[in-house]
Amino acid sequence: MSKALLLQNVRPWGAEATDMLIRDGRIARIAQGQAADGADTEDGAGAILLPGLVEAHTHLDKSLWGMGWRPHQAGPRLIDKIDTERRLKTQWNIDPHRQSMRQALLSLSHGSTAIRSHVDIDTEIGLAGFEGVAQTRDTLKGQVDIEIVAFPQSGMMSRPGTAELMETALANGAEVVGGLDPCGIDRDPKGQLDAVFALAEKHGKPIDIHLHEPDELGAFSMEMILDRIRAHGMQGQVTISHAFCLGMADRARAHGLMERLAEEKVFIATVATPSRPVPPAAELRERGITLCAGSDGIRDTWGPYGNADMLERAMLLGLRNNFRTDPDVEHALWCCSYGGAEVMGLEGYGLTEGSAADLVLVDAEAVAHAVVAHPPRRLVLKGGAVVARDGQTLTEAP
Amino acid sequence: MSKALLLQNVRPWGAEATDMLIRDGRIARIAQGQAADGADTEDGAGAILLPGLVEAHTHLDKSLWGMGWRPHQAGPRLIDKIDTERRLKTQWNIDPHRQSMRQALLSLSHGSTAIRSHVDIDTEIGLAGFEGVAQTRDTLKGQVDIEIVAFPQSGMMSRPGTAELMETALANGAEVVGGLDPCGIDRDPKGQLDAVFALAEKHGKPIDIHLHEPDELGAFSMEMILDRIRAHGMQGQVTISHAFCLGMADRARAHGLMERLAEEKVFIATVATPSRPVPPAAELRERGITLCAGSDGIRDTWGPYGNADMLERAMLLGLRNNFRTDPDVEHALWCCSYGGAEVMGLEGYGLTEGSAADLVLVDAEAVAHAVVAHPPRRLVLKGGAVVARDGQTLTEAP
Repeated sequence: MSKALLLQNVRPWGAEATDMLIRDGRIARIAQGQAADGADTEDGAGAILLPGLVEAHTHLDKSLWGMGWRPHQAGPRLIDKIDTERRLKTQWNIDPHRQSMRQALLSLSHGSTAIRSHVDIDTEIGLAGFEGVAQTRDTLKGQVDIEIVAFPQSGMMSRPGTAELMETALANGAEVVGGLDPCGIDRDPKGQLDAVFALAEKHGKPIDIHLHEPDELGAFSMEMILDRIRAHGMQGQVTISHAFCLGMADRARAHGLMERLAEEKVFIATVATPSRPVPPAAELRERGITLCAGSDGIRDTWGPYGNADMLERAMLLGLRNNFRTDPDVEHALWCCSYGGAEVMGLEGYGLTEGSAADLVLVDAEAVAHAVVAHPPRRLVLKGGAVVARDGQTLTEAP
Repeated sequence: MSKALLLQNVRPWGAEATDMLIRDGRIARIAQGQAADGADTEDGAGAILLPGLVEAHTHLDKSLWGMGWRPHQAGPRLIDKIDTERRLKTQWNIDPHRQSMRQALLSLSHGSTAIRSHVDIDTEIGLAGFEGVAQTRDTLKGQVDIEIVAFPQSGMMSRPGTAELMETALANGAEVVGGLDPCGIDRDPKGQLDAVFALAEKHGKPIDIHLHEPDELGAFSMEMILDRIRAHGMQGQVTISHAFCLGMADRARAHGLMERLAEEKVFIATVATPSRPVPPAAELRERGITLCAGSDGIRDTWGPYGNADMLERAMLLGLRNNFRTDPDVEHALWCCSYGGAEVMGLEGYGLTEGSAADLVLVDAEAVAHAVVAHPPRRLVLKGGAVVARDGQTLTEAP
C-alpha cells in the first residue's frame, strides 16, 4: 500500500474548494480542512480537479510521434490511406511498441488515464501491432489503462486469414472485437458482421466497429449492426465509432436510427471531425445515448494533426457542435471523461468517495474555461500515485 | 533609424537555413554566413521564419479576455447574441480600449503583426467602441497594424442614425466600411447595400460585409453585393466575411457564385467555423479567389472559444477543409498570412529582400509542422524591432 496523499485546495469538477484524501489508490475522504496526519500533501492551489480523461478512440500502433516530420503521402480515398499505411509501416519502421509507448505517455501527460486503442491486424503485419501495443499496455500498467481492439484495418472478408489472426489476438488478451465499414471496405456486410459478432460471442468480448460510411449506406450498415445486437443480446456492449451517417441531412431518418441505438444501448465514439458530418452530441444526449470521444490517429500516415489532449478534443467537440453555454461545454468534457469511462466499463470511475484516484488537476477558473484554454496539466494521478506533473510524465518516452 | 539586426540560422517559410539582415525596418539581405558588422544578432536556432501573421477578421472591441470567466448567456439565434451583447457591454463594463489592448497584445504574442477589426457602431454605444479601438491602434502603432471596420452590428437600416455614426467614424479614420446580413438582420437588402456602397464611394474606402445568411438567401445577398461592385467599379476592394452560402449543398450554384466572385476580385474571409458550412478553401484557390482568415470574436459574449493564435487558426482551417498534405496545410497558413496581407493591402509584405521586417520565428521542423503543433513563438519582430519573445509581448497588457 502506498502512502496516503492529501490533495489540498482543489475544486472537483469546478465545485467549491476542498481537500481530498487519497488512500490505497482510492478517494478516501472529501472534506475541507483535513489534517495531513502523516499523509504526503499536494497543494492544488484552487485548481479544477477532473477525473482522469478517457481517450476512447485512437490508434496507438501507428503514430509517427517522435520520428521527425514526414509529409503526408496518401491519396484522398479511405482505401488510399489504408494501402499507403501498410506500405509505410515497413518502409519507415513504425515500431508498434515504441510508437505506442510514445503516444500513451503523451496522452498521460495531458491527463488521460485510460485509452481504448484500435490496433491493426492484417495478413501482412500479422499480430506484430497487437504484440507491440500489448507490451506497452503491460509496461505502463499502473500508469494508464490501455484496452486493445483487435482491428481489421485492411478488411476482414476481403483478406482471408484476418479473422483467424483476430481470434488469436482475442485469445491472447485483446479486450475488444473490431470491425470496419462492412460495405465500403469489405463489400460483404453480412459476412463481416456475422464474423465479428461470432468472435464476440465466442470470446465473450465487446465490439467496437469503425463506421465511416455516410448517409444511407451507413444507415444500412448501422441497421445490420442493430439487428445483430438484438439477436445476440449484446445491448450495452457495442460501440459504433465515427457513425458519420448520424450527421446525415435527412434528420428524420437519423432520429429513427437514434431511437434504435437507444433501445439497444449502443455507444457512439466520435472525433468531432470538422470536415465530415458527425453524430450531433446534443441529439444523442437528449436520447440517452452515451457519446465518448477520441483523438483518432495522432500524426500518422493518415494525417498530420493531433496531440492526444482530450481537453483540446473537448474544445473541438464543443466547436463542432456549436456548444457555447457552460453546461454544454461541460457536456463536451463529459464525453471525454465519464462518457469514455462508461464505454470502457472503467470500475470506480468518478470524483466521489470510494472512486479510483485517477485524477487530473488543471489551472482554470471553471470547467468550461479548462476546456477552451486547456493549459498544461498541473498534476496527473493514477491510482493515487503521481504520474505526470506540469505537463510532463515521470516516465520518459523511448 | 534603429540599429541593424542580423537574424542568424533561420529558415524562411521552411527553406534552407540562412541569415537575414534587417535594417531600417526592412529585410536588407538574405544570405548565409553574413558577418554581423556591428548589427545586433539573434540566433534563430534553425527555426522556421514566417512573415507576421495576419488576423484578418476579429472584433477587438468586445473580448472579455482578462475579465474573469463569465458563463455564456445568449440564446441560440444571431439576434439573441446581438441583443445580449448590447446589454452586457454596459452591465459588465466591457471597455473597448482596455479590451482591445488586451486582445491586440495577445495576437501579437502569437505573431500577428496586422489585424483587421470590425468595431460595433450602433445608436446605443455610439462611437465609443470606435474611439476605444482607435486609441489602441494609435497606442500600439509600430507594434501591430490595426485596421478598423465601421461595423453596424445591430443593424443599419433598422436603426436609424447608425449610418450617420458610421459616416463620422469613417471621417475620423475608420479604414473600412462594414455591413451585416442585409436580409437577415436589416430586412432591407437594397437599402443597406446601397447605403454601404454610397459610404464607400464617398469616403474612398473598401468594404467588408459579414454575410452569415445560408444557402439561397446568402446567394441572393451575395449577388446583390456583386451587382454593386460591378456598378461602382469596386473590384479588389470588397471582402465578404463568413460567406457560409459558399458551403451550400448545391455545389453547381456555389460554383456559379464563385465565378462571379473571381470576376469582381472579391476577397473572402473565413473563421473555418466547424459547426457551419464554410467556403471551401481548395475550390476558392482553384478559382484564384483570395481567402483570408481570422479568429472572429475571442472569448466574448458570443462564445467562450478563441485565443488569437493564427497558427492554430491555420490548423482549424486545415482540419475543416480536410487538408492533409504539406502543400495543403501550407495553403491554410498562406490564408492566415499572405491572404490576409492581400486583403488588408499591406505594403511590402513578405520574406524577400526589401520586404517589411514583420516576422515570426517558430520552432518547428517544417511549415506544416508549425501549423499542427503551433508552439509558442520564439520571436516576433515588427518593422525590425523585437515586440514579443517566447510567447510574451514586451509591452504589458492593461
